Amino acid sequence: MTDAGALIDGVLGADRGAIARMLSLVEKGGPDATAAVARLYPQTGAAHVIGITGAPGAGKSTLTSRLIGRVRATGDRVGVLAIDPSSPFTGGAILGDRVRMQDHATDPGVFIRSMATRGHLGGLALAAPQALRVLDASGIPWLILETVGVGQVEVEVAATADTVVVVVNPGWGDGVQANKAGILEIADVFVVNKADRDGVRQTVADLEGTLALAGAGLDGSWRPPIVETVATRGDGTDELWAAILEHRAWLAADGHDHARRAARIADELRAIVAARLAATAGARCEGPGFDELVARVSARTLDPYSAADELLA
Amino acid sequence: MTDAGALIDGVLGADRGAIARMLSLVEKGGPDATAAVARLYPQTGAAHVIGITGAPGAGKSTLTSRLIGRVRATGDRVGVLAIDPSSPFTGGAILGDRVRMQDHATDPGVFIRSMATRGHLGGLALAAPQALRVLDASGIPWLILETVGVGQVEVEVAATADTVVVVVNPGWGDGVQANKAGILEIADVFVVNKADRDGVRQTVADLEGTLALAGAGLDGSWRPPIVETVATRGDGTDELWAAILEHRAWLAADGHDHARRAARIADELRAIVAARLAATAGARCEGPGFDELVARVSARTLDPYSAADELLA
Repeated sequence: MTDAGALIDGVLGADRGAIARMLSLVEKGGPDATAAVARLYPQTGAAHVIGITGAPGAGKSTLTSRLIGRVRATGDRVGVLAIDPSSPFTGGAILGDRVRMQDHATDPGVFIRSMATRGHLGGLALAAPQALRVLDASGIPWLILETVGVGQVEVEVAATADTVVVVVNPGWGDGVQANKAGILEIADVFVVNKADRDGVRQTVADLEGTLALAGAGLDGSWRPPIVETVATRGDGTDELWAAILEHRAWLAADGHDHARRAARIADELRAIVAARLAATAGARCEGPGFDELVARVSARTLDPYSAADELLA
Repeated sequence: MTDAGALIDGVLGADRGAIARMLSLVEKGGPDATAAVARLYPQTGAAHVIGITGAPGAGKSTLTSRLIGRVRATGDRVGVLAIDPSSPFTGGAILGDRVRMQDHATDPGVFIRSMATRGHLGGLALAAPQALRVLDASGIPWLILETVGVGQVEVEVAATADTVVVVVNPGWGDGVQANKAGILEIADVFVVNKADRDGVRQTVADLEGTLALAGAGLDGSWRPPIVETVATRGDGTDELWAAILEHRAWLAADGHDHARRAARIADELRAIVAARLAATAGARCEGPGFDELVARVSARTLDPYSAADELLA
């Protein structure tokens, strides 16, 4: 048996060490990772992925920790994939967040992994689904995908989950630039966390109004419930869990889940093809011809986009 | 004269309305924008671009406002391009930052523009240099490019400037995950802002030690100076300005600027070519053949990466 074969068997057998090694492989990226996940792929599809996103400081990690406890109370195993933004500046804060989840670190029914994504072809958007497949193939039925809602890619990654939980706080939306339409588009469940603070009524009413304007719940569409939580105390955890289960049941009815997963696969295929095409750029951008174009652009006798046209001709 | 011709003449004549309209065109992206900036390109290259980046809350916008004032004291015009992360969550906070710069809003020698980048092919990384070219072609000699250091792309964009100012606060680097090497790689000038707070000596010593370990300043390389500021009071602004001028003089000596700009152009060409190749993915991902592949991936009889191989074959 090859090493890759042993690793794959380990993942399928829910061996924690094998899962961790396979996730490291995925994080690093490259053909070995792709080949390994391809072999796991037939064994995936059973897990339900819960995406959790929101602004920094909204309380996502504390909420995730509560949700882990709630899933564990049912006896089911749960996996968490927490995506770190790849910035050299924000490391400390993120580490602090992760520490909050360590209540569950010794529970063998909980698998928590932080992931940064420098190496992977296509970045975060392609690495995250591959990592989720590893956890899915290991037989964990509930997966939580937590991303900080900074940067468009981070928000989009959370939006690939089966059930997307968007976390806001009282007072959210007062800033005129907050893109409510963009958030409505991705949210399956709204959480107003820190609901013991002032302004919670107004924020819930705002969300209700925005949902009503958008026609959420009409014509058989899903109307995102709004759950109030105080994650630091555990308030609202049961209601959030009920909302997730309700959304999952709605997905299972009338083939919503099938349509949604097919659309997600189509998006992922487009992204893989785009990343592979983009990866061929390097080969076109080397050698004396390229150096001469760079010199002409430097001398401003040719603009960069016309130079690119020449490289692609 | 065509409308585009009038707009280009307006930019070259430093007409504020024309500059604003051209920047809107660049923000939206598309062939018209590319063609217009190509016509401006021969008139660019004189401006010196100062990149300012750092963690949220580090005081970048207040520092930028001080720097604007310092440049204006020399009589020179200054342009600011402030890049908003494209997240639906963080709108309010960013707006607050920008308001701090409005001290200079009525000064005709100052041009401030916030930019978000949803539409542009290749995103922020390709849109920002195009926007800077518009300001450059209008004859503004000093350009400040401010990006929040969250997300890899945002940091990389700031790193394309001629002089990159990295802003940290006392206590920065205590978090074990802070990627000092990544920051050293891009910084031409370090600013320790909020230098009236505890821990400033330790942070400066940390930076000095890290620079020494990396061999900064050896073999004719640039050794990034460390400037202490209290931007809210204006302390250290003169020292920061002197550090920027010193770096600019170093760039001009021995052809450092030429080598650096050529490397930047080569990077941009690779990115344009990659984005244009990626943009052709859509055409490969449609029609009955594509739908059939999606169905096979949905049924888990084919994995997404093998499906992409078939699309690319």
